[in-house]
Amino acid sequence: SVNPDLASERQTASFSVEKLTAWLDGGAEHTQLRRAVVEAIERDPVFSRENQYFQSQNERYEEAVKKAVHLQKKMHEMGWTENGPEFKYIYRALSGDIAFLLHRIFIRSISVLGSDKQIAKWIPLATRYQLIGSYAQTELGHGTYLQGLKTTAVFDITTQEFILNTPNISAIKWWPGDMGRSATHTVVFAQLYIHGKCYGVHPFIVQIRSLQDHSLCPGIAAGDIGPKMNFQHTDNGYLLLQNVRVPRENMLSKFCEVQPDGTYVRQGSQKINYFTMTTVRISLISDEVVIPLMKACTIAIRYSVVRRQSKLKPGEQEAKILDYQTQQEKLLPQLAAAYAFHFINNYLQELFNRGYREIQRKNFNMLPELHAFSSGFKAMVTQYGTSAVEICLRACGGHGYSLLSGLPSLYTKILASCIYEGENTILLLQTARFLIKCFTAASTGQPVPPSVTYLAAVTPGKCPAKTKLDFLSPDIYTEAYQHMAARLISSTAAKLHDLIQSGVKKHDAWNQCTVQLVQAAKAHCHYITVKNFAETVEKLETQAGIQKIMKHLCDLFALHGIFSNAGVFLHDGYISGAQMDMVTASYLDLLAVIRKDAVPLVDAFDFTDKTLNSALGSYDGQVYQRLYEWAQKSPTNKQTNPAYKKYLKPLLHNTLSKL
Amino acid sequence: SVNPDLASERQTASFSVEKLTAWLDGGAEHTQLRRAVVEAIERDPVFSRENQYFQSQNERYEEAVKKAVHLQKKMHEMGWTENGPEFKYIYRALSGDIAFLLHRIFIRSISVLGSDKQIAKWIPLATRYQLIGSYAQTELGHGTYLQGLKTTAVFDITTQEFILNTPNISAIKWWPGDMGRSATHTVVFAQLYIHGKCYGVHPFIVQIRSLQDHSLCPGIAAGDIGPKMNFQHTDNGYLLLQNVRVPRENMLSKFCEVQPDGTYVRQGSQKINYFTMTTVRISLISDEVVIPLMKACTIAIRYSVVRRQSKLKPGEQEAKILDYQTQQEKLLPQLAAAYAFHFINNYLQELFNRGYREIQRKNFNMLPELHAFSSGFKAMVTQYGTSAVEICLRACGGHGYSLLSGLPSLYTKILASCIYEGENTILLLQTARFLIKCFTAASTGQPVPPSVTYLAAVTPGKCPAKTKLDFLSPDIYTEAYQHMAARLISSTAAKLHDLIQSGVKKHDAWNQCTVQLVQAAKAHCHYITVKNFAETVEKLETQAGIQKIMKHLCDLFALHGIFSNAGVFLHDGYISGAQMDMVTASYLDLLAVIRKDAVPLVDAFDFTDKTLNSALGSYDGQVYQRLYEWAQKSPTNKQTNPAYKKYLKPLLHNTLSKL
Repeated sequence: SVNPDLASERQTASFSVEKLTAWLDGGAEHTQLRRAVVEAIERDPVFSRENQYFQSQNERYEEAVKKAVHLQKKMHEMGWTENGPEFKYIYRALSGDIAFLLHRIFIRSISVLGSDKQIAKWIPLATRYQLIGSYAQTELGHGTYLQGLKTTAVFDITTQEFILNTPNISAIKWWPGDMGRSATHTVVFAQLYIHGKCYGVHPFIVQIRSLQDHSLCPGIAAGDIGPKMNFQHTDNGYLLLQNVRVPRENMLSKFCEVQPDGTYVRQGSQKINYFTMTTVRISLISDEVVIPLMKACTIAIRYSVVRRQSKLKPGEQEAKILDYQTQQEKLLPQLAAAYAFHFINNYLQELFNRGYREIQRKNFNMLPELHAFSSGFKAMVTQYGTSAVEICLRACGGHGYSLLSGLPSLYTKILASCIYEGENTILLLQTARFLIKCFTAASTGQPVPPSVTYLAAVTPGKCPAKTKLDFLSPDIYTEAYQHMAARLISSTAAKLHDLIQSGVKKHDAWNQCTVQLVQAAKAHCHYITVKNFAETVEKLETQAGIQKIMKHLCDLFALHGIFSNAGVFLHDGYISGAQMDMVTASYLDLLAVIRKDAVPLVDAFDFTDKTLNSALGSYDGQVYQRLYEWAQKSPTNKQTNPAYKKYLKPLLHNTLSKL
Repeated sequence: SVNPDLASERQTASFSVEKLTAWLDGGAEHTQLRRAVVEAIERDPVFSRENQYFQSQNERYEEAVKKAVHLQKKMHEMGWTENGPEFKYIYRALSGDIAFLLHRIFIRSISVLGSDKQIAKWIPLATRYQLIGSYAQTELGHGTYLQGLKTTAVFDITTQEFILNTPNISAIKWWPGDMGRSATHTVVFAQLYIHGKCYGVHPFIVQIRSLQDHSLCPGIAAGDIGPKMNFQHTDNGYLLLQNVRVPRENMLSKFCEVQPDGTYVRQGSQKINYFTMTTVRISLISDEVVIPLMKACTIAIRYSVVRRQSKLKPGEQEAKILDYQTQQEKLLPQLAAAYAFHFINNYLQELFNRGYREIQRKNFNMLPELHAFSSGFKAMVTQYGTSAVEICLRACGGHGYSLLSGLPSLYTKILASCIYEGENTILLLQTARFLIKCFTAASTGQPVPPSVTYLAAVTPGKCPAKTKLDFLSPDIYTEAYQHMAARLISSTAAKLHDLIQSGVKKHDAWNQCTVQLVQAAKAHCHYITVKNFAETVEKLETQAGIQKIMKHLCDLFALHGIFSNAGVFLHDGYISGAQMDMVTASYLDLLAVIRKDAVPLVDAFDFTDKTLNSALGSYDGQVYQRLYEWAQKSPTNKQTNPAYKKYLKPLLHNTLSKL
């Protein structure tokens, strides 16, 4: 039975939840396929996550391997394939809680970096799991700056082998998933030396464990890097190499080859390679940010209509906490952001598909823009998403702090996305570099990619809004974001230029502008996100009920951004103080409007209770029952109290040596 | 041997670290005492926290009990007392990682709420640990709103007992520490009923476990509430009561008593009781926020001069990451905040000591101000501190994400401080209510407490600064904060007034202003913090070197606040866009200045390596060594791989049923 406080929220939906779900999925046929996949996964007890919050790192790892192995069978049985449309639904249903994700990267890197011969040899072995692969790039003391990696691979012409070494402690490979305990092979990135000359970083396939008994190979030291904030199920590992020899054929050689006589030959274009990195950044937006954020919103919003606390009106019963303006102001902007990021993800996917088609025609013109986009949006979305999940957690008070709410693990996992696949600050600076270049080009009348043509027209101006209702016009707020982004980029470009003119060295000048460059890059991504949301809503013309609520969410996302970053809009007077009061008024009004549809809006994300794995977020809203019953299953309640005989009893019986 | 990259940072300190430490401690004699305590604790292997990051909830709990029991012996041995000057140093040295903290609250609540007879009976038993106490107030579905608690205590006149019951699932007591597995007794807050009439919430001493064999008493169900984000060492518990009878004498009766015939008598003043709550909120600022924040800064800043990444200048070696402006902008404002909060804590302690003296003279005039201060500063400091620790964690990249850095546990623990002892939003609204009252009083010429007299003089105006150097004047920025706080309070008061005038009901009008009220309350606390920092620096006149660097930190704290909340300063034109550019310039300049002393400034916090318990933060900066050696001690590396025989071997040997 559904908690009546939750049930009542569903009766007044202003739109069809089922239709919204189908639209979010990209069509009812996708919804159907997704539900079929989820059902097949959830019916299978091997994939259960029920005990997850009670398990140790060791148990989580074992479960993840078990699930990964079982998944192979399941996929075969169901006729699902890695490249089929089902895979993203499988991942969603499993919440990514499986092993061998780096094995996939191992396969991908050989496919992309290997010669045809290497592909023919290694891919079938890996696909059939006759080996388990990993991908060893990052080192203890070296990561982001790839050229700074210290592992060496010296070509020995006499034996036609590379000799790999970890020259010092900071060069130990660190972090690769699947490597700490599972992998038999890995792709090691090392500085290639031939006849004493360094040719830079190259990838080498190295066997690290015996295929017979899984013991470490000679010259190899490897193990687990220990406990982390999350990813207990992943055996992130370390690797030390001491005079490990691999045959010449093990250097992945699609782009570069060392010939038997030691001649180094560069062949083909490595550009496609950068494209692979950019696609990874884009693909994580949906899997690792949007879906977790949607889950967090679902949990926190459902809980906020079940939880009652204090009285809004004297004499009435305690109010649902979602009826408090402060609670709405915490949660509803995060809900709007979840939608905004879902749409920007669609936009980026389209852009990248277009880019991919061009690249296949050997047209690499879009690469700089794609790189800038993938970097900036990866950073912006992961950072925003992380804050948003944290807000959801904190908005649930004490219960949000319990692992059983599901929120702590969503938070600790999404947090990692700010760091992996490029640390966010560094990524934003890459985007900023692109924007500054484009700004300079645009100001001198040179052509720039369509997404940044707005930089050509940076003009002072004033926002034309006259009433708070004017701020519900997408033209008004999109224009404000555009103006603000252009201003931040142009003023930082001017500062950079002035510094250099005044004699500061280029690299010092750049460093002195980086705080503002980061701000400018974020502003650009924020602007594109708002613009894309507004355009998405506009295109939705026919579906009246859905369009209306999406319009509200778009307005909320945009006005929340102006309200929370008021300084950058007020700075040059584009928005006046009086107009900012209108923004605030419209923003707060919207909270009350969207609050009415808050539960239907999270229901539309269509998460099953098993996928949410949360005592607070379940569809029926039986929060207290579930917390109570679930807590009782905790191992701490099933084991004898380990402290009683040893400490508590002697203390209470006063038989400890007298205090 | 100290890492040379770290050692070089210490050679150029602009002040005496030892003198700064002594000043922070409140005198060299305090430093001496602290070091003696820390040394005694750390020399004792029972108190070791070395394995903490590898332990399960069960193991952590057992350790915490063991330490708490051992601490009793140690204190006796050393001649330390609970109320002595050593206790705060003990707590710091143990990082709060011990059991029986709620036992202390049990003792305190009996001391405050109990009659002399009750004190005489229970306190000696508790002090000698012939029972273990807890404190059961919060329920599964009821917390902040105390009047909403649902547990009942019905007076049975025939047996002269109270019958306690948990009427429904949402009334289960939930969260009390020490209750899940340790406590034999607890103070239960329940609605008192006599002859069918409800007299509101009262405290009752209830035995929950046998003193003989620790089994649950009849009518009691109790256990652990399961895993949380942190506090694995604490057995936060649940409690269900079914017709549990306690004698009439067990209702704590300093303020209210039920006489044998059922007459309810209220006696004495409960006001002192509110004062107890406020002191708890103040005392947690130092223990649970300032010290953890200082630790996080120490770890992140030391790591940032050891870690090198990318090149600042072409051709040079990779740069220390603290030399990047973006890294400085992440960490140095947090360092400044740690100092700011240390000083505001001193200020609050003084204020409360003064308040306490007044209250002992039965003068309760200061209570509203003290309540508003304790609420607002608890909320502001915990929220700021939590964000600050998160920033430190993220600033350390992947290694910050490892539990071995110490940062994840600092973060997950400080996060809880935003929720316990009053959820922050609710506390800020209490402060706001006080501020609105004072504003109304001040505008009509009535007297207000000294801390809010500034509200009487809200005037439009302009910041007089003309150059970026003017913003290094404490008068200039303190004035700006004062203006901003006063404006936010007065404009929200005006909105509230207008709404009520226009016919909106008072409670609805209040709710519609709460987002802005929260903002105003934060602004007030931020202003007082800046003002207090500036005054603290000014008083420091004689200690030249220290005063200079403290002045820089004060400027940084103030300007960072203006830079990050630019909107509220620009809104009414008090600060212009051009002046905001000056703020930004001075702010960024300060980063480069303070960066030079960053390591000495964290060294002055004087944490031992054992207290930090961090692979990144140790005094010698041997980060990579420590991470590598520590990771190898992880249980995952000491156990046989649990997945090998069952899953990996059959997979690799292709002996799983064919895929």
